[in-house]
Amino acid sequence: MDTRFTGVIPPVVTPFKNGEVDYDSLDRLIELLIEGGVNGLFLMGSSGQTAYLTDAQRDAIIERTVAKVAGRVPVLAGAIDTTAARVIEQAKRARALGADAIVASCPFYALNDMAEIEDHFRAIHEAVDLPLFAYDVPVRLNGKKLDTAMLVRLGTEGVLAGVKDSSGDDVSFRRLVAANEKAGHPLAVLTGHECVVDGMLLLGADGCVPGYGNVEPRPYADLWEAAQRGDWAEARRIQDGICAGFEIVFVPVGRSGDAGGIGSFKTVMEAQGTIASNEMPFPLRALEGEVKEGVLAIARERGLI
Amino acid sequence: MDTRFTGVIPPVVTPFKNGEVDYDSLDRLIELLIEGGVNGLFLMGSSGQTAYLTDAQRDAIIERTVAKVAGRVPVLAGAIDTTAARVIEQAKRARALGADAIVASCPFYALNDMAEIEDHFRAIHEAVDLPLFAYDVPVRLNGKKLDTAMLVRLGTEGVLAGVKDSSGDDVSFRRLVAANEKAGHPLAVLTGHECVVDGMLLLGADGCVPGYGNVEPRPYADLWEAAQRGDWAEARRIQDGICAGFEIVFVPVGRSGDAGGIGSFKTVMEAQGTIASNEMPFPLRALEGEVKEGVLAIARERGLI
Amino acid sequence: MDTRFTGVIPPVVTPFKNGEVDYDSLDRLIELLIEGGVNGLFLMGSSGQTAYLTDAQRDAIIERTVAKVAGRVPVLAGAIDTTAARVIEQAKRARALGADAIVASCPFYALNDMAEIEDHFRAIHEAVDLPLFAYDVPVRLNGKKLDTAMLVRLGTEGVLAGVKDSSGDDVSFRRLVAANEKAGHPLAVLTGHECVVDGMLLLGADGCVPGYGNVEPRPYADLWEAAQRGDWAEARRIQDGICAGFEIVFVPVGRSGDAGGIGSFKTVMEAQGTIASNEMPFPLRALEGEVKEGVLAIARERGLI
Amino acid sequence: MDTRFTGVIPPVVTPFKNGEVDYDSLDRLIELLIEGGVNGLFLMGSSGQTAYLTDAQRDAIIERTVAKVAGRVPVLAGAIDTTAARVIEQAKRARALGADAIVASCPFYALNDMAEIEDHFRAIHEAVDLPLFAYDVPVRLNGKKLDTAMLVRLGTEGVLAGVKDSSGDDVSFRRLVAANEKAGHPLAVLTGHECVVDGMLLLGADGCVPGYGNVEPRPYADLWEAAQRGDWAEARRIQDGICAGFEIVFVPVGRSGDAGGIGSFKTVMEAQGTIASNEMPFPLRALEGEVKEGVLAIARERGLI
Repeated sequence: MDTRFTGVIPPVVTPFKNGEVDYDSLDRLIELLIEGGVNGLFLMGSSGQTAYLTDAQRDAIIERTVAKVAGRVPVLAGAIDTTAARVIEQAKRARALGADAIVASCPFYALNDMAEIEDHFRAIHEAVDLPLFAYDVPVRLNGKKLDTAMLVRLGTEGVLAGVKDSSGDDVSFRRLVAANEKAGHPLAVLTGHECVVDGMLLLGADGCVPGYGNVEPRPYADLWEAAQRGDWAEARRIQDGICAGFEIVFVPVGRSGDAGGIGSFKTVMEAQGTIASNEMPFPLRALEGEVKEGVLAIARERGLI
Repeated sequence: MDTRFTGVIPPVVTPFKNGEVDYDSLDRLIELLIEGGVNGLFLMGSSGQTAYLTDAQRDAIIERTVAKVAGRVPVLAGAIDTTAARVIEQAKRARALGADAIVASCPFYALNDMAEIEDHFRAIHEAVDLPLFAYDVPVRLNGKKLDTAMLVRLGTEGVLAGVKDSSGDDVSFRRLVAANEKAGHPLAVLTGHECVVDGMLLLGADGCVPGYGNVEPRPYADLWEAAQRGDWAEARRIQDGICAGFEIVFVPVGRSGDAGGIGSFKTVMEAQGTIASNEMPFPLRALEGEVKEGVLAIARERGLI
Repeated sequence: MDTRFTGVIPPVVTPFKNGEVDYDSLDRLIELLIEGGVNGLFLMGSSGQTAYLTDAQRDAIIERTVAKVAGRVPVLAGAIDTTAARVIEQAKRARALGADAIVASCPFYALNDMAEIEDHFRAIHEAVDLPLFAYDVPVRLNGKKLDTAMLVRLGTEGVLAGVKDSSGDDVSFRRLVAANEKAGHPLAVLTGHECVVDGMLLLGADGCVPGYGNVEPRPYADLWEAAQRGDWAEARRIQDGICAGFEIVFVPVGRSGDAGGIGSFKTVMEAQGTIASNEMPFPLRALEGEVKEGVLAIARERGLI
Repeated sequence: MDTRFTGVIPPVVTPFKNGEVDYDSLDRLIELLIEGGVNGLFLMGSSGQTAYLTDAQRDAIIERTVAKVAGRVPVLAGAIDTTAARVIEQAKRARALGADAIVASCPFYALNDMAEIEDHFRAIHEAVDLPLFAYDVPVRLNGKKLDTAMLVRLGTEGVLAGVKDSSGDDVSFRRLVAANEKAGHPLAVLTGHECVVDGMLLLGADGCVPGYGNVEPRPYADLWEAAQRGDWAEARRIQDGICAGFEIVFVPVGRSGDAGGIGSFKTVMEAQGTIASNEMPFPLRALEGEVKEGVLAIARERGLI
């Protein structure tokens, strides 16, 4: 396993202001995350609202982040597009801009079976000379879930360096951990399950990719350390606190999947002074009015603002 | 309603050979379709396997097709990408290359609500000066179905010129036809329901977008004419014949959604001499062996080869 | 094919009053349906809200209906329960009470594959000496859709007399019609697709099971006759009228699947004087207030009240 | 919280032999479970294959179990039927036969919203004087997931004594645990997530309902005790061992949801001598041949046989 890619690796939020990416806010956010003790940064994930970014914006964000990070932690970049031919184009650009690893989506809009998906990852690995992570996020992919045996096989063969699991399927996650262990632990298995990081670390995850880590990086770092030393009661205590704050995502009832969650993160981050505005990329509208107040009330109770 | 965009408008298959788009085959296919009596051509649809094409390939296909068609029928081009910012980039290039209309996907990978999707179409219309069709294809979009009232509202306001409905949801389709009628028929309502075109024309569709039309364009043209003169018994007779041939798509049991259907189309088209190979874009593998034989047996029984 | 079970066979609504089944209203409804020209009655369907009825209520409704109908049209009874062992108990009671045919659900709550479902229907047929219909209603069955080849095989072997298709999947419906024809037409293929009966009859359905037929039986009978004589323009005209009335089901936005549709039927039926109350079985609440007014406004415009 | 209903409460498998419930095997199984240290028994759950049992069989199983248990542990009985009217009939019979608590399904086949489901549970509580558990099992209920706030409200008001959560949704499970705690812990919150009991106990579950506990009750009892004393490393060690055995359920590839999992449990239980046969209720076929051998090989490696 490539140990550079373990621990807390938050998917970095993309700040917006007046319809454009706000790079000053991005700089502040990166600094905050690194000071918060994270072990790496993941660009172009769902929290980064990548689907809404043009290629030019994606490139500029990677470039800026790599410069700002200056090697202090590894930078993973999502290569998010419909099929391998297009993912490879995204990944090559990210590599040229200094990313340390690629996180590739499995095909979407396309309707593929598991053998085709395996070929997909093999092709990306052959074309792009960087550690490669598979991104398992069924909710965005018509419910498609990556096969455990395939992932371990690709790990053993050196095609994949790891998996970012946002499936919420614990049974398959635990089976992946066990099969990976049996195979000599080639894969770094990261969970996106930000509310159950304690449980996932207990059962053997190598790290976590918590979107909410943009709001509270330090507790995730503390949780990771508690887990490392086997203090599970403390790990749970920290996670329960995190979850009390995470309640913000349930305030925007009736908003779309992309507007509610990240919208609540950004609303607190704006109040914290990390980012200049809780604006989101078009056509997502920022939280405001009572919903915004509801989010901030939770953040205040949790002592975040 | 813009009457240029009615009748039979097949989504054009993208021929491949030795890993590259096969433009000679594409030329033959275009000629065959126009001679077969179609009323327009739709590029960059699902039958075109657009998700597997790079931007460079998409551009080259549009350019070649526009040149070959030389104004004989209108050319509609799909602008398929995750969100409006990216769709607009696709659409602008298609316009510059000579497309007559744009067929825009609703957002995917993104998780939006209907208000955000409405903004999505408005933004594309404002940015690209061409007739705009909404592409309603829930099976590729996490089950998302476009709202009838929204579509008619956008038609009335001149944002949308039409809808390409591949939802298979007849109740909403009929409601769309009725609401469109009531609003003065601003939208050209096209069905992608290639096995029930007779029934859909009976209930008021303005045309069809049949992938299987790549294999048999002429019967669809005949069906359209029969429907125009109200000869529904003949329409059904033709459609039943088409459906006998369409059985080819059910032969590749256990293949992925993208490999089975288009794979069977291409297999017959290869045997017909329209295209040089039944090859598909990576990672889709061409049909072969018993499956290929099964497909060809049906085509032979139908007299296609 | 058993021709007794063709034409218009509405699923009979179960009237309620003061928390009890209202048999006087049921009598009126039956009379209205028969006078309206229907060809049969289907008890214990979804429109009958069967899931909410105890066995004692189910029995009493069948008994009352059989007595009231007095042989004028055939009476089909749904045998709705989780698995064959339980369906058989329901079906035997229905047979003893005078039902002319059984409509059996495929297993639910249970998670079965198609081979198990085939055994399910065989067992019911062996145990109950009445014509047997398979009830294909995926929306209530975790999306499970009955296999076309299996249905035709069971028809050919005399296990099934017909299929009641409420799947809304036209491609499989047309394939069922074609395969049934090829096999000598053993099955009576009925559509539950009440808004597209014209199209479904055009493509070869043997009849329809329209829940909305409780509100307007006569137009469905007229539609059936127009189709029989090949007057498809008239069939469409009638269906368009029916659909204008069917808009009532879209008024109760935000109500549950079981409360909105049947609730709107009952609301018009109450206003028509067919049933004494628009009450529904616990825990479904009757439509009232603005929603009720909205439903009645449509019914008034259609001339139903 | 009613502390009688915490700890390890396996859902009891229903043994079959020659097409009938095998009561001698049931007796042996009950004895084995109690000797294995379980804290209660849950009859008529999914592992009991309740959907396949007639009312007469359900009653006989409850009666036999209550007699055999003789008060040594509490007996919870599932009341599984489509709606409240029918669930109440099931529950009253279970109470008369000596069950200590009722586990009621939410409505199925029916299509209800959350307000109707809340009324459903209230009605059952009013009608049946026994502690009531809500059974949250979306995979059998068209994906329906019970609302956290509703569950806690019903706990606070004394309607519900607990929840049996088989949703696999950890985020909502953790939120339920937290909300229940905040409300004074009225509910016993049990997880059906048999592969992640360690993680679920870490985050605050009051117990577990593991189907695989029929095969290995003792490790679950040990896991519960380790968790009680805060020895999480040991809890994980035990759970990892359990999961190695649980791999049997992944052997029957391509079998239905109801045949594969319970079929593999029964196959090992037969080899262990607990039950006389691995037979399943019609139309489920017992595992045999290579699949059976594959299951037994895993059981042998785990030292179960």
